[in-house]
Amino acid sequence: MSKNTKNWSYLAGFLDGDGSIYVRIKPNKSYRFGFQIAPTIAFFQSQKEEEKLKLLQKDFGIGYLRKRNDGIVEWIIGDEQGIKTIIQNTILFLRLKNKQAKLMLEILKMKSKIKDKKDFIVLADKIELFRTLNYSKKRKKRIY
Amino acid sequence: MSKNTKNWSYLAGFLDGDGSIYVRIKPNKSYRFGFQIAPTIAFFQSQKEEEKLKLLQKDFGIGYLRKRNDGIVEWIIGDEQGIKTIIQNTILFLRLKNKQAKLMLEILKMKSKIKDKKDFIVLADKIELFRTLNYSKKRKKRIY
Repeated sequence: MSKNTKNWSYLAGFLDGDGSIYVRIKPNKSYRFGFQIAPTIAFFQSQKEEEKLKLLQKDFGIGYLRKRNDGIVEWIIGDEQGIKTIIQNTILFLRLKNKQAKLMLEILKMKSKIKDKKDFIVLADKIELFRTLNYSKKRKKRIY
Repeated sequence: MSKNTKNWSYLAGFLDGDGSIYVRIKPNKSYRFGFQIAPTIAFFQSQKEEEKLKLLQKDFGIGYLRKRNDGIVEWIIGDEQGIKTIIQNTILFLRLKNKQAKLMLEILKMKSKIKDKKDFIVLADKIELFRTLNYSKKRKKRIY
């Protein structure tokens, strides 16, 4: 098999091993309810692997690379269509991040249907569930 | 596709994302040239993921799990047959750790053919190449 095909079971393993699926809620007054909702899939590698990660990003044709100042290069998928494409194609192969993947799809669906502040709060609560699935010590608890 | 099959392209992605391929040389007088050569493939997860990692280990039927004191659980493959099985089945799918995989196979071959101290030194030099591929700051430089 050529490496230059979209090998989704490979990407599922890479996502389980190296990836992160999360949604950030950032205070931003230009958004309707005062918060921006930023769903993301990200992969993290040493900058030594930048070229290889770039090839992977190109083969899948999704997202972009971002160099951090600490020697890490990130492959970021922040657009909803890209996130859906990855999850829908990897979810049957995932073995560790199934719950995060499923939760992300639910959140994207809810997000597309927000009508009022009540909907927004239900969505924000749902997003809080990532807290129990992932384990960031930095994430803040917010009151909406 | 059932998750409970040996999905090697998944494992290739998981190895690229989460795994480590390395050989340690440990001083040990009970070994012929005063050093034990310990080839290893290891995966590292939070202990939250212990059960899922255990399932993965069982499905592939290779290696064992080890709990560390720092909240990490490792899936360790230290037997040469297990290491060969993983590498031979994943190498065509690997995109980041190809060089480490190839180097490991070469080292296992050389290791099986050591006849004298000269062979051992050539092997030890070969093992040093992992230093340039991986990036441990802790690994020591040794003189044989």
